[in-house]
Amino acid sequence: MKKILILFATCLLAVSALHAQELTNFAFGGQKPIISPELTQDSVTFRLKADYATVVKLSGSWLPNPWTGTIDMTRGENNVWSVTVPLPAPEIYTYYFLVDGVAVNDPQNVLVQRDGTRYLPMLLVPGERTENYGEAHQHGTVSHPWYHSNILGMDRRLTVYTPYGYENNPKKKYPVLYLLHGAGGDEEAWISMGRTAQILDNLIEKGLAEPMIVVMPNGNANQAAARTLNIPEKPMGNRWDREAFAKMSEAERDLVMNGYVRSLCTEIVPFIEKNFRAIPKPASRAIAGLSMGGGHTISASILYPELFDYICPLSAAGSATPEQIAALKKAGVKLYFLACGNTDFLFQGAEEMHAKLTEQGLDHVYFVSDGGHVWSNWRLYLNTFAQLLFK
Amino acid sequence: MKKILILFATCLLAVSALHAQELTNFAFGGQKPIISPELTQDSVTFRLKADYATVVKLSGSWLPNPWTGTIDMTRGENNVWSVTVPLPAPEIYTYYFLVDGVAVNDPQNVLVQRDGTRYLPMLLVPGERTENYGEAHQHGTVSHPWYHSNILGMDRRLTVYTPYGYENNPKKKYPVLYLLHGAGGDEEAWISMGRTAQILDNLIEKGLAEPMIVVMPNGNANQAAARTLNIPEKPMGNRWDREAFAKMSEAERDLVMNGYVRSLCTEIVPFIEKNFRAIPKPASRAIAGLSMGGGHTISASILYPELFDYICPLSAAGSATPEQIAALKKAGVKLYFLACGNTDFLFQGAEEMHAKLTEQGLDHVYFVSDGGHVWSNWRLYLNTFAQLLFK
Repeated sequence: MKKILILFATCLLAVSALHAQELTNFAFGGQKPIISPELTQDSVTFRLKADYATVVKLSGSWLPNPWTGTIDMTRGENNVWSVTVPLPAPEIYTYYFLVDGVAVNDPQNVLVQRDGTRYLPMLLVPGERTENYGEAHQHGTVSHPWYHSNILGMDRRLTVYTPYGYENNPKKKYPVLYLLHGAGGDEEAWISMGRTAQILDNLIEKGLAEPMIVVMPNGNANQAAARTLNIPEKPMGNRWDREAFAKMSEAERDLVMNGYVRSLCTEIVPFIEKNFRAIPKPASRAIAGLSMGGGHTISASILYPELFDYICPLSAAGSATPEQIAALKKAGVKLYFLACGNTDFLFQGAEEMHAKLTEQGLDHVYFVSDGGHVWSNWRLYLNTFAQLLFK
Repeated sequence: MKKILILFATCLLAVSALHAQELTNFAFGGQKPIISPELTQDSVTFRLKADYATVVKLSGSWLPNPWTGTIDMTRGENNVWSVTVPLPAPEIYTYYFLVDGVAVNDPQNVLVQRDGTRYLPMLLVPGERTENYGEAHQHGTVSHPWYHSNILGMDRRLTVYTPYGYENNPKKKYPVLYLLHGAGGDEEAWISMGRTAQILDNLIEKGLAEPMIVVMPNGNANQAAARTLNIPEKPMGNRWDREAFAKMSEAERDLVMNGYVRSLCTEIVPFIEKNFRAIPKPASRAIAGLSMGGGHTISASILYPELFDYICPLSAAGSATPEQIAALKKAGVKLYFLACGNTDFLFQGAEEMHAKLTEQGLDHVYFVSDGGHVWSNWRLYLNTFAQLLFK
């Protein structure tokens, strides 16, 4: 046995040395390791080694104009460029460096979020606002099953979160939240940008939310899965090609307009209730979505008013007629949680929806936050309404 | 209904425009979209827009010296730098750009592999060698459950692949392959660099491999999960701190030397057989691992000779005594698949192991490939031995 162990140990060392060459955040030759980002109580320092760069800048999502506003970095010892800025308010931000005009990720930062097709370094500023955004002690399981859609004509990838304890309580059944992303997103948006697993893990661990399953589908009817899997998209008609749209049959138009929502309500819900230990009742089903997903949420509540007892459109586009609202009242909706940022470009629509719900006498929560059409709001909304579900 | 749809459509357009700003591979103002990488029959062109760069180079894992060898790129129209190189042999490669000395990912490429803490753009060159590395038509499910380890004192994250059809055949039970990563890797290494899901999906779809579950644990005893989750590592003794090691009790030393392998065999295997529809028999259990994971594979086969009927050390460090080999013979091992590259720095060890197995009369497959200690070999080995399992 000793001989094996010694051989094995030698190999470990050799392999470690080899792999070290692959790790950009490894310090060679006794050089001080570069730390980035480095947080203090009131500041954060970013560092990047760039030997031959002429200009290095920092771009961060907390800056007044995140698209164009940048901060110059200064060349220091060993060509490590750095800048120290005031610590932004507790939240999750993304940032990158501009090296002679080209966007570069921070090689020192292991925390990365995927936003559409990009991977961006993440800055989590600790505080009350973000206390549920880091890793909890007890972790749920994240999985990616594929369901078959007859409506959309393809197998499609889902993201499913099952809560801590799911594996150890094989008789227990759980309520389900269907959580929908916005335009530009996919089935990974909520789990990456939205920190769904962390938020639910923390809320459940603290006893603030019921243990629940969360299902995050891909809301782009022409996609089987996130573009990172490189599966060709399916050509589909759309409502903006007016000439072609006018020539379609009613069924074809419905597919274009409602295909995904119909797949969600008549294919994904049954798939989940067959393959997971889900309680198959309206009182144990919630639907929530941001932006385009908020539109999907409203559409689903109109097309299938009896399916979900909890309905949460977030920063959403969409509206409803008095008859449609009456149908929801009649179906016995337990929570209607309407949320929007007060500088969101869709805020006026949220105000109007709030007025309509009030007019029609549908009890609802109208949750208005500071800020606009951004992930900081959607994390806040999830962290808020998840505590109100299934109670 | 019409009113909803129109509102919704307007919003979709507005949101699309907003999100477009976030997508770096979106072409603005009628500029031609940049395509990178662009493959032809015999060449591949890489492109990067870099307005203010002085020197832009390409670094690729297929180049003669991937650590230091780079190829100059040339500035063209609109400051799009490009280079066209001969198409390398069919395989998966990673590459990046050096912009004035700083490594930059290709913003046009949606295919990305995670290697340790880095995300690198991926180049898949089509051909016979890689025909199972792209997406199949039928997809298995990838999940990340957490098991509790009493031995290592923490909850630990796993990657589990269940084959296509698992959800639709609720009575069917499956054999299980335990697939172990090397030093520098974690529970995501095989699924990302190793293309495990794609290889198994393709082999199973073609009827070349038995439908099986594949379990990919984290083999670093001090880690709960991949470093990208930022969970603090647990301080643990190690064998190279000789003074401290000498003072340990036998039990403490065993934990340091074999803690992970014991957790794998006595905690992970039961967890999988409880929570998945796994056949709980040696004839339905396989173990395989690369490099350090090959060492773990050999250790597991020595410590628990009756647990696995299929044993596949790949580019491995490790050896065994005549008695240990005899124990495997006695246990009735069905396949011993020993693989190594002929330029691997561990090749001599593989040769010696092959000689020992031959000497002791343990039937085995000795699979020698061209090349060294690299993922192209490990994908090839998985694609090869997976076809031999459970038959």
